[in-house]
Amino acid sequence: MRVETHIERFTQPLYLESGRILEPYELIYETYGQLNEDKSNVIVVCHALTGSHHAAGRYEGERKAGWWDSVIGDGKAIDTRQFFVICVNVIGSCFGSTGPMSPKYPSGKAYRLQFPVITVSDMVKAQINLFDRLGIHHAHAVIGGSMGGMQALCFAIEHPRFSKRHIMLASTYATQPWAIAFNKVAREAIIKDPAFNEGEYDPKVIKEEGFNGLSIGRMSGHISYLSPTSMEDKFGKVYDEKDGLYDLFGKYQVEKYLDYNSRNFVTWFDPLSYLYITKAINIFDARRNYDSLEDSLSRIVSKITLISFKADMLFLPHEMKYIEETMHKIGKADLTEYTEIDSDYGHDAFLVEIPKFEKIIIDALEQ
Amino acid sequence: MRVETHIERFTQPLYLESGRILEPYELIYETYGQLNEDKSNVIVVCHALTGSHHAAGRYEGERKAGWWDSVIGDGKAIDTRQFFVICVNVIGSCFGSTGPMSPKYPSGKAYRLQFPVITVSDMVKAQINLFDRLGIHHAHAVIGGSMGGMQALCFAIEHPRFSKRHIMLASTYATQPWAIAFNKVAREAIIKDPAFNEGEYDPKVIKEEGFNGLSIGRMSGHISYLSPTSMEDKFGKVYDEKDGLYDLFGKYQVEKYLDYNSRNFVTWFDPLSYLYITKAINIFDARRNYDSLEDSLSRIVSKITLISFKADMLFLPHEMKYIEETMHKIGKADLTEYTEIDSDYGHDAFLVEIPKFEKIIIDALEQ
Repeated sequence: MRVETHIERFTQPLYLESGRILEPYELIYETYGQLNEDKSNVIVVCHALTGSHHAAGRYEGERKAGWWDSVIGDGKAIDTRQFFVICVNVIGSCFGSTGPMSPKYPSGKAYRLQFPVITVSDMVKAQINLFDRLGIHHAHAVIGGSMGGMQALCFAIEHPRFSKRHIMLASTYATQPWAIAFNKVAREAIIKDPAFNEGEYDPKVIKEEGFNGLSIGRMSGHISYLSPTSMEDKFGKVYDEKDGLYDLFGKYQVEKYLDYNSRNFVTWFDPLSYLYITKAINIFDARRNYDSLEDSLSRIVSKITLISFKADMLFLPHEMKYIEETMHKIGKADLTEYTEIDSDYGHDAFLVEIPKFEKIIIDALEQ
Repeated sequence: MRVETHIERFTQPLYLESGRILEPYELIYETYGQLNEDKSNVIVVCHALTGSHHAAGRYEGERKAGWWDSVIGDGKAIDTRQFFVICVNVIGSCFGSTGPMSPKYPSGKAYRLQFPVITVSDMVKAQINLFDRLGIHHAHAVIGGSMGGMQALCFAIEHPRFSKRHIMLASTYATQPWAIAFNKVAREAIIKDPAFNEGEYDPKVIKEEGFNGLSIGRMSGHISYLSPTSMEDKFGKVYDEKDGLYDLFGKYQVEKYLDYNSRNFVTWFDPLSYLYITKAINIFDARRNYDSLEDSLSRIVSKITLISFKADMLFLPHEMKYIEETMHKIGKADLTEYTEIDSDYGHDAFLVEIPKFEKIIIDALEQ
C-alpha cells in the first residue's frame, strides 16, 4: 500500500459558520493507494476527536499503526488496491492542520484562545477546499466514526453531490446532553487546572511535567468510549497486586488503566485542541440552519449507511436509528441502510470490532 | 411525625475490617416516629455516598426536606405512625459521625489522611453497636439505596438475625469497574487539585473559595446518577440564552446544571470524606471473606427484596438480578423477590421515582 503525507496551505479565507474567518490555514492529510485516471476511486475517511490524518499504515519506528489500519489497506474492507483513500486532519486539531496552537497571521504568535470556534461544517468545508485543489470534485464514498460520522453526515447534507455514498458509524444527528456532560467534565478539568493558565501554558512544559486537567478529562472520555460489560471483560474486579486493599490510594486494574492511558495523553494531544474540538462536537446538530431534521436530510441525494453499536454509551443506537426513521419519513428509505451491531464493547467498537461490520462497508462501497 | 436527632459517643474500639481500630468514635442519627414497647417496629434506613442521617422531615428554615422524605413519614410507604425509623450517618462521612476531619485522640487534630480506610462492613458494624446501646437487638427491616443497599446486603449476610427483612434498591453485590471508573475521575480530580494540598486543606477556605477538584468529581458523579434519556428529558439540546453559540465557553443547559450543582457541593460535603466513602464503595464486594457469592448469600436467613431500575447507569440491573439468581441457585428462592422498575431516570430513580416502587416496599414490610 502506497502511503503519502502532505500539507497544503490555503491563503484564501475560510468563512466559518460563526461568521469569523480563518486565514491562512493549512491542512495535513494522508493518502493510501493510488488515484485512478478519472479520479473516480476516492474514499474520504474522517477522523474522530483525538484521531488524525494517520488512519492506516505504520511509520518507521512507530509502535501502533494508524487508527483504522484494520479497515484500510490492500485486501481490507476499504481496499487500497482499488480505492484511493484520503484522510484529512481537521482544522482545530493538533497534528499539523491549523489549530489553536498554530501561528496567527501576521504576529506569528499562537492563536490560543483567539482561535475561532469551529464547527463540524467548517471542518468539512476546509476538506472540500483541499479536494478542489487536488482536482477531486467527486468521491466514491465518505466514511467516518464518531465525530467522523458527523462529518460524513455533514458531507451528505451540505455537499450532497460530492460523494455517492456516506457511511456513518457510532455517531449521531445531534450531540445529546449525555455526551455533552462527559465533555463538560473534561473541559472543566482542563480549564480549572492552574497549568492551563488561561490558555497561556507552555506546550513543552506540560508535555514534560504533565497536565492533570487533560488527564482527568481523558479519563472521563475513556468511560464513555467503553461500556460496563467491556470494562468487566477487560478488568474484572482485579486489584493491583502491589497495592494494599485497605490503602486509600490502592488501585484496581481499571484505575491503573485509566491512569496509564490518561497520563501520557498530554504528550500527544493539545489541551486547547481538546477544548475546540469538543466544542465542535457539543454544538453539532444536523438540524441547525434548517427547519428540522426532515428538512436537512431532505437535501441528501445519495446512499447513506448507518452503523450503530448496541452498547455505545456515548452516541446511543437510537440516535442513529432516528436518522433512519427520519429518512423513511421523508420518502428516502431507498437511500438508507441502518444496522445495529451486536457488540458489548461500547463506543470504541467502531475502532476494534471490525469483523462485525466490515461486510457492511464492503457491500456499501460496491452498491 | 416525631423527629429526633442524637449523637452517641463510643469509647470502646471499633475493630475495622482492615485490622485497624477506630477509637473513640461518634455516630449521629435521626429517628422518625416512636419506638413501640417491645421494640419490634424498628426500620433501619441506610444512606448513600453523599446522603446523611437526615432522611426525612424538614428542619426549621431548611429549603429541602430529608433525602427520602417522600418515602418516610406519616401515611407514607414507610409509615411513621406504625414504624420507628432510624437513619445513622455512616462513619467516614462528614455530617457528624466520625470521619477524616474528626479530631484524632489524643492530639485532637483532624485525622485527615491518617483516617483508616473503612468498608461497608465497618459502617454496618458501627450501626449495630449503636443499636445495641439503644437496646435494639432486632429490626423489622433494613432498607437502603445505592451504598445504602450495600449496607442492607451486608446486614443480611453478616448480621443475619438482626433484621427480618432487607430491601436493596439501585445497588450491587460488588462494585464493578464501570462504577469504579466514575469514582476514579472524581478521586483524581480531588487529589490532583492543588487546593487539596495532600489532605491539609483548610475546610473554611475551600468552602469560601471553592474546590474545583471536588466540583469536577461531583460532575462525574452526576453523569452516573442520571441517564441519557433523563438528561434529554431534563435539558434537551437547549443552549443558554445569554451565551453565544460560537463562544468557546458558552453553555448548554446541561452544562449549567452541572456547574450549578457541583460548585456548591464543597459547601456541604468534605473532599476527604468523598475519598474515604468512594474507597469503601469501590472495594465493596459481598464475596470478600467468603468463598463465593453463593457462600456469602447462604448466610442469609431472612427475606431480601431487590429493586433495580432499568436505566440505572451506575449499578446495572443485571448486578441486582445476579443476587436473585444466586439466591435461587442456593435454594433460597422463597426468601428472594426481585423487581426491575421500568424507569428511564437512571440511578437516582430510587430517590425520585417513588410512586413506581413504593408498593413493593409496603408489601415487603407487611409480609
